[in-house]
Amino acid sequence: MERVISQQWLLVDHVSRIPRRGDYFLFRVGGEQIIVIRENENEVHAFFNVCRHRGSRVCLEDEGHKRLLTCPYHAWSYNLDGSLKAARLMPDDFDQSQHGLHRCHLRVFHGLIFVCLSKDNPPDFDAMYSEFDEMLGFHGFSDAKIAVQRNYPNAANWKLVVENFIECYHCAPAHPEYCSVHPANQLLALGAGPGSGPKGALEAYQPTLDKWEARASALGHPSPCIERSASSIDMAQLSRFPINDREFDSETRTGEPACTKLMGKFNERDHGETAFSFNPISFILACNDFAMMARFTPIDGMQTDIQLTWLVHKDAEEDVDYDVDNVAWIWDVTIKQDKRITEDNQAGILSSRYQPGPYSEQERLVMTFSDWYLDKLEKH
Amino acid sequence: MERVISQQWLLVDHVSRIPRRGDYFLFRVGGEQIIVIRENENEVHAFFNVCRHRGSRVCLEDEGHKRLLTCPYHAWSYNLDGSLKAARLMPDDFDQSQHGLHRCHLRVFHGLIFVCLSKDNPPDFDAMYSEFDEMLGFHGFSDAKIAVQRNYPNAANWKLVVENFIECYHCAPAHPEYCSVHPANQLLALGAGPGSGPKGALEAYQPTLDKWEARASALGHPSPCIERSASSIDMAQLSRFPINDREFDSETRTGEPACTKLMGKFNERDHGETAFSFNPISFILACNDFAMMARFTPIDGMQTDIQLTWLVHKDAEEDVDYDVDNVAWIWDVTIKQDKRITEDNQAGILSSRYQPGPYSEQERLVMTFSDWYLDKLEKH
Amino acid sequence: MERVISQQWLLVDHVSRIPRRGDYFLFRVGGEQIIVIRENENEVHAFFNVCRHRGSRVCLEDEGHKRLLTCPYHAWSYNLDGSLKAARLMPDDFDQSQHGLHRCHLRVFHGLIFVCLSKDNPPDFDAMYSEFDEMLGFHGFSDAKIAVQRNYPNAANWKLVVENFIECYHCAPAHPEYCSVHPANQLLALGAGPGSGPKGALEAYQPTLDKWEARASALGHPSPCIERSASSIDMAQLSRFPINDREFDSETRTGEPACTKLMGKFNERDHGETAFSFNPISFILACNDFAMMARFTPIDGMQTDIQLTWLVHKDAEEDVDYDVDNVAWIWDVTIKQDKRITEDNQAGILSSRYQPGPYSEQERLVMTFSDWYLDKLEKH
Repeated sequence: MERVISQQWLLVDHVSRIPRRGDYFLFRVGGEQIIVIRENENEVHAFFNVCRHRGSRVCLEDEGHKRLLTCPYHAWSYNLDGSLKAARLMPDDFDQSQHGLHRCHLRVFHGLIFVCLSKDNPPDFDAMYSEFDEMLGFHGFSDAKIAVQRNYPNAANWKLVVENFIECYHCAPAHPEYCSVHPANQLLALGAGPGSGPKGALEAYQPTLDKWEARASALGHPSPCIERSASSIDMAQLSRFPINDREFDSETRTGEPACTKLMGKFNERDHGETAFSFNPISFILACNDFAMMARFTPIDGMQTDIQLTWLVHKDAEEDVDYDVDNVAWIWDVTIKQDKRITEDNQAGILSSRYQPGPYSEQERLVMTFSDWYLDKLEKH
Repeated sequence: MERVISQQWLLVDHVSRIPRRGDYFLFRVGGEQIIVIRENENEVHAFFNVCRHRGSRVCLEDEGHKRLLTCPYHAWSYNLDGSLKAARLMPDDFDQSQHGLHRCHLRVFHGLIFVCLSKDNPPDFDAMYSEFDEMLGFHGFSDAKIAVQRNYPNAANWKLVVENFIECYHCAPAHPEYCSVHPANQLLALGAGPGSGPKGALEAYQPTLDKWEARASALGHPSPCIERSASSIDMAQLSRFPINDREFDSETRTGEPACTKLMGKFNERDHGETAFSFNPISFILACNDFAMMARFTPIDGMQTDIQLTWLVHKDAEEDVDYDVDNVAWIWDVTIKQDKRITEDNQAGILSSRYQPGPYSEQERLVMTFSDWYLDKLEKH
Repeated sequence: MERVISQQWLLVDHVSRIPRRGDYFLFRVGGEQIIVIRENENEVHAFFNVCRHRGSRVCLEDEGHKRLLTCPYHAWSYNLDGSLKAARLMPDDFDQSQHGLHRCHLRVFHGLIFVCLSKDNPPDFDAMYSEFDEMLGFHGFSDAKIAVQRNYPNAANWKLVVENFIECYHCAPAHPEYCSVHPANQLLALGAGPGSGPKGALEAYQPTLDKWEARASALGHPSPCIERSASSIDMAQLSRFPINDREFDSETRTGEPACTKLMGKFNERDHGETAFSFNPISFILACNDFAMMARFTPIDGMQTDIQLTWLVHKDAEEDVDYDVDNVAWIWDVTIKQDKRITEDNQAGILSSRYQPGPYSEQERLVMTFSDWYLDKLEKH
């Protein structure tokens, strides 16, 4: 937690979850609870959910609305910026200004809320993510809203959840629905992002990719590619690719649009998809008309909370422009399969006979992740 | 457990719980089970619930009646004084007299059962509690009976439960019912006992207290005051005060009597209340017509069992002289609020960011408790 | 687990549980899962349920049928002999022959499946159990089938479960049904096997035993006696004795036969019973017409799984030749009583006041077991 997770900017939610002054939600990570709360139209803050007096939880509900953050125990009350507003009967030498809530680093970027748990200075957000600026802007996340949000508690170590998400070697045996949308040659080449598949596979798929990029480019759509190494802070990635070779409008069962309203600067559908990986536990997969945000949160050594959030254009109307189950379909079914897989993986790993086996050619990104993890442990 | 809890005389119950020869109940504390059993009209004993043969539990039910304490495993049977009565097929050199149940120190004082878990000599009971003799006698606990007994398991460390009970800083925000009975100036001055409030508050309240004491004294009612320091063995306290300034007969919603039969030597209602604190986990709060006995029992580092027992005069008749819900009202509602508060406090304390904050003027007794605890850890 | 349990040949089940090619069941022991699977008519194998690739569980159900052992994660597939059959996309230097499932030692002996968890060479099965050959053959376990199998999870350390099973000191107070079938003088002499009772008791019972043995011998029934010491590998035992002196045909409520079909080479009922103890956690108690196989499996320090399996002749027909509840009666009721007893024993042992007491004359085998256990800890 200290050397790896606390040194990352974690994508925790979208600002549309807390639209009004005083709206908050709790983000649980490791043994911590973080209050993410809106102070005003421009400011969102994050605080550790621990009263500075006797240590009580200040917010007791998973989400809600507060005019003041008043501790339910002795009624110390904090302003929405975390500063202590009132504490009764304190001695004369009590310095109110020194007893605001412990702040957690927070950054809102294109409507996406990132936090960093580090006690010290967090890594330089802009240095890390300015390269994502254009594409995030193009997808219009600032003007998005949450269509639906679902949680999938997972009885496995977070590293197994990550490993599962960054290789597509298991796609063929385990994800029939996902494979019904995406073609085998694509899944092999970059099914879990750039660098995930065998080298030959990417070369073989490159002409298809180039052809699609040319068309997208002709529509004025950017084609960024970021693929950071194991020695980077974040192992971040950014890539675009066609959903398949059947001109699917969106990642849906039939290829029909998921939402009639396009997001961001998409004026015309390009049948493509963008994969953002901010770090190994923070992802967005975005079509032209919806995006799926994946948050993998370590709780303890044997428990990882998975939260998926589906975003659409803020003006899209439920049951008119989009159907929630249709938008959520592919990742809801896929993550449930992954939950079973990783839990069975975790169970087996506890055997005295377990030893890591050799990686397949389609697990190259898992090797990178393993190197990245060791690099972080050593560096810190 | 060894250095602090096992060195105290713990108030565990009232003798009326086990009126007949062979009646027993189990007292669970830490990892232990203690059998508290009546041998005859005059003798009550306490034993560890562990057979001297293979170690089985001897009593399996939380309470019951036994003619002999016969182990359900191999039928070793013990007399009600704990001595081994019979063990079949033992070798010739077996010394029956050396295999009685392990005894736990026990003392009955004015009908109150106290135990001490120490393996060695317990602290001197009489030296500690003879000062309480007159007032316990005046309240007539020897002639009391249990009106009702309730349990409130609490997912918090016992020290948080104690700290909550010995400060009234949280009364205003957390206990509306309690505050509807007791006036604010009283709660501030001594809401959690002598020494709990700001110094100025007690001085301000003193005239009210003096006036009431004079009236009580005129009725022949004692006005003891004990307030032991952090370096004492038990941090015991004893004090009397008026319920409020509205001539409440008892600690009830409306001030009406809780029980038509007065306890002990009270011939006339004095509208007052007595607070006995035998040690930081053993309390009695007594009106003229009923008393509430609070037992806070550490189970493990994260669990404390709270048992409240309400006592009335032994001749009072349920539904005639008193109504159980009326008698239990104020402390039942208050302790449930405290349970929530302390559990939220415990949760917050587990955060890496928790650090103890400064105490308010109304938490002076918590500071004393903290000193007392450290003193016991060091001394032992 | 390593020094004691993993050095034993554990009796885990009867081959009739997995009659057809590909039938399997999982054996859970300590933190491990063992797949016991039939390859063909002659071969049964045992493997650790851990894929050699990423470590996933390969079999997810407690029992079932597999044509291939295909891992649900990445579809590595293993033949029924454990060898790796197929793994997609592996690098050129991947040696398939080195990635079969980790094998667990297995031996089938008279239809009984034994496994040994040792990473190294297991102890010499034939040297240990060839002395059991004649009697196992006489009981015809190769031609048996499972009438019924039941599980009794037990919240106690496995050593307490063993100690309970190898002494009959508790029979009189705890097992009225068992005592209704077996006479007191027998239970005293050898109620938990040879060497379990007081010396005088066996001598007193010897004439009864001799008389019955002579009759059994006249019928051509063997009368073996094995009684291995604390310094042996397995502390194995084998003995025969009459059910009682009332000519009971089988261990049933009334003494009526449990099954109309006799097992093995019994042509005529001899009113006797055979006790096989392969090691302290693997037992069979066999009448002429049914047998009860007891498997005590350590799960962790506080949990032991008990599985009882009742065997009858493979040609016996349920509800025609035997009634399941009648066959299972005595041990089902007895083991449920033992479960309660051992759990209460475990609870008491956790007290700080627990100290092992002296043994009775009827617990001699428990002393041997204690010596055996310490001998194994030291030797290994």
